[in-house]
Amino acid sequence: MRIDGRDYRTIWLDADGRRVHVIDQTRLPHRFETIALDDLDAAARAIRDMIVRGAPLIGVTGAYGLALAAAADPRDAAILAAYETLLATRPTAVNLRWGLDRVRALLLATPEAGRAALAYAEAGRIAEEDVACCAAIGEHGAALIHAAAEKNPGRPVNILTHCNAGWLATVDWGTALAPIYKAARAGVPVHVWVDETRPRNQGASLTAFELLSEGVPHTVIADNAGGHLMQHGLVDLAIVGTDRTTRSGDVCNKIGTYLKALAAQDNGVPFYVALPSSTIDWRLSDGVRGIPIEERGAREVTHISGRTADGGVAEVQVTPEGSPARNWAFDVTPARYVTGLVTERGVCAASENGLKGLFPDLAG
Amino acid sequence: MRIDGRDYRTIWLDADGRRVHVIDQTRLPHRFETIALDDLDAAARAIRDMIVRGAPLIGVTGAYGLALAAAADPRDAAILAAYETLLATRPTAVNLRWGLDRVRALLLATPEAGRAALAYAEAGRIAEEDVACCAAIGEHGAALIHAAAEKNPGRPVNILTHCNAGWLATVDWGTALAPIYKAARAGVPVHVWVDETRPRNQGASLTAFELLSEGVPHTVIADNAGGHLMQHGLVDLAIVGTDRTTRSGDVCNKIGTYLKALAAQDNGVPFYVALPSSTIDWRLSDGVRGIPIEERGAREVTHISGRTADGGVAEVQVTPEGSPARNWAFDVTPARYVTGLVTERGVCAASENGLKGLFPDLAG
Repeated sequence: MRIDGRDYRTIWLDADGRRVHVIDQTRLPHRFETIALDDLDAAARAIRDMIVRGAPLIGVTGAYGLALAAAADPRDAAILAAYETLLATRPTAVNLRWGLDRVRALLLATPEAGRAALAYAEAGRIAEEDVACCAAIGEHGAALIHAAAEKNPGRPVNILTHCNAGWLATVDWGTALAPIYKAARAGVPVHVWVDETRPRNQGASLTAFELLSEGVPHTVIADNAGGHLMQHGLVDLAIVGTDRTTRSGDVCNKIGTYLKALAAQDNGVPFYVALPSSTIDWRLSDGVRGIPIEERGAREVTHISGRTADGGVAEVQVTPEGSPARNWAFDVTPARYVTGLVTERGVCAASENGLKGLFPDLAG
Repeated sequence: MRIDGRDYRTIWLDADGRRVHVIDQTRLPHRFETIALDDLDAAARAIRDMIVRGAPLIGVTGAYGLALAAAADPRDAAILAAYETLLATRPTAVNLRWGLDRVRALLLATPEAGRAALAYAEAGRIAEEDVACCAAIGEHGAALIHAAAEKNPGRPVNILTHCNAGWLATVDWGTALAPIYKAARAGVPVHVWVDETRPRNQGASLTAFELLSEGVPHTVIADNAGGHLMQHGLVDLAIVGTDRTTRSGDVCNKIGTYLKALAAQDNGVPFYVALPSSTIDWRLSDGVRGIPIEERGAREVTHISGRTADGGVAEVQVTPEGSPARNWAFDVTPARYVTGLVTERGVCAASENGLKGLFPDLAG
C-alpha cells in the first residue's frame, strides 16, 4: 500500500536477489524507516524486537530468514541451527513455525547446491499467497461496503475498526482493512472511526498511519466512544480482525472487541470479522471457555509511549506510583454477536454451518 | 478521606476562619499539594484552572469565593461583581450557579456588617450538606456490597468502576466510591477494578490515587478489559456515577459507561449508578435523544500527559501528525441496563416509578 505516494509491501527482496527489506514498525507512526536484513541474525532480530509484527508477516520473515541462512551455508547443520534460532524469537507464533517448517522440509529434501535459490523462491511464494489471500478478503468485504453505500447515497460509509488488522500486519492489504482499501480504491466514499486501542494504541498509531498514508478519511476516537457513535447512527458497519476463530464462529481479537460487538448488536449495526482461514481453530467450539487469553506486562497500562514536543519518543506514567495494573491482551466475542465472517473464499455466517459451507475441505 | 494516613476533605477553612484551603488536583496523582485561597481572585482561579473539579466541589468553592469577597468588601457592588467573576469561571456548571445564587441572595438580604460571617457560615453549610448526602449514598450502596460479600464468603467483592466519582469530585466520600469506602471501613473485603477512563484518564489517575491513599485494594485496567473480566466471573458488581439522570432513569456519565453496562447485562453482573438527587433532570425522559453531549478538544485523544522518568510531567502524542480525532465526553446508558440507582434516600429501580417513590417531593 501507499506511503508518501509510493507503493510498499511490509517485506520485499532487494534487486540483488539476496538481501531482504522490511519496514521498521517500532518507529511508526512517528518515523518511517526501512531496514535491510543481510543475514540470519538480522532476520531473527527483526522478529524478536518486533521490527516486524503480525502473524502473516512474521511467518514470511522467518521463511526469508532461512533463505538468508541457506545462502550463507546450505549444509544441514546450518539449516537446522537457523531453524532453531528463528523459532526461538517468538516461540508461540503459529505462523512462524508453519513458515519455517515449510521451508525446512523443502531444503532438507534438496541437494545443497540448489537450496538457497529454492528457499528464496519458497519464501516469495509464501508472501504471494498471503497477498492473494488478503486481496480476496478485501474483495469480498468491499462488496459489503458497496452495499452500505448504495443504501445511503451522497454520504460516506462510516466504518468502525478496532486495533490494527491492516497491511502492516500482513504482507499487503491486511485483513479487516483490506475491504476498506478495496472499496476506497474503487471510488466508494468511506470514513473510518479508528479506536485508539489501549493499552498498546495500535489503532491510534498503526491503523491511523496506514489510513493517513493511503489517503483514506478517518478519525481517531477513544475506545470508550464507539457505543455513543452507534447510538447516534454514526456507524454503518464495523469490521475487525481476529487472531483465532473457533469452528462455531467465536472470535478472539484484541481486548475491547467484545464491547464493540455488544454495542453493535444493541443498535442494529452490522459487525463483521475479517480472517484468513488459517486463523480458524477447528478443534475448538467454545471460545470464551476454550481460548487461553495472553496476559501481558502491567507497564503497557501504566505507561504510554509517544512523541514529545521536541520530536523524540518518550514514555510517561499515567497511574500513581504504587497502583497495580493488569493487562489482558485479547477477549472473545461470541458468534451470536458477529453478523458475518469475511474470508478469502467469501462471506459466511459466524457458525459451524457457515464455516463448513465455505471450507468443507478443512472442517474435518 | 485519607492521604498519607491523614484525613482530608477537598476544601476546608483555615484555623483563622478566613482563608480557604483546597487540594491542587491538577498535580494529582503525581504530586499532593494544597493551595491556600486568600481572596476572591484565588478562588476564581482555582475553579477556572481546574485546581478544584467535580460539580459539588465547584459549588462549594464558589460559595467560599463569595465569602472571601464579602470579607474584603461587604458592599452590594462588590458582592455582585464577585458573583459575576466567579460565575464566569465555569459558565455551564449548574452547581456553581446554584451555590452562588444561594449565598448571594442571603447576603443581599443582610446588613453589610454581618455579611462576611454569614457567607462563611452558608458556604460551610453547603459543604456539610454535600458531605451528608455523599455519606448517605455510601451507606445505602455499602449494603449492596455487604450482600455481595455474604454470597461469596472468603474472597473479596470485585467491584468495577469507571472514571472518578470519588471524594475528590465532592467535599468528602464521593458518590460511586462512597459505598466502597463505607464497606471497606466496615471491614468488608473489597477489590476495585479501575477503568483508566480515556481520554482524560481520571480513573488511572484520580480514582487510583484515592483508593491507594485510602488503602483499598485495586487494579487499574484498560477501558477495553471490563467485558473480558465479566465474562470470566471476575466482577461481582459495577458502580459508576452520573452527571445527569433523566426522570426515567437513563444516566449520562463519562464516555464508555454504556459499553460497560452492556457487558454487565450480557453477563448477569449488577450495574449500579450512584447519584445525589441534584443530578436528576425531571424535565427529561429520553436520555439518548434529550441530553446534549459535550464534545471536547481532539488533543485530549491525540496527546497524553503523565510523569516522565525524571519525575517531571510531560505530554506525548500517540497519533501520527495529520490524523484527526474527536472527543465526546459522555454517553448515555438507557435505564434498561441499570440494575438500580443509589441515592441519598436509598436504592431504587432505574425508572420513573422508582425515582418518584423516593422523591415524591421533587418529581412534580
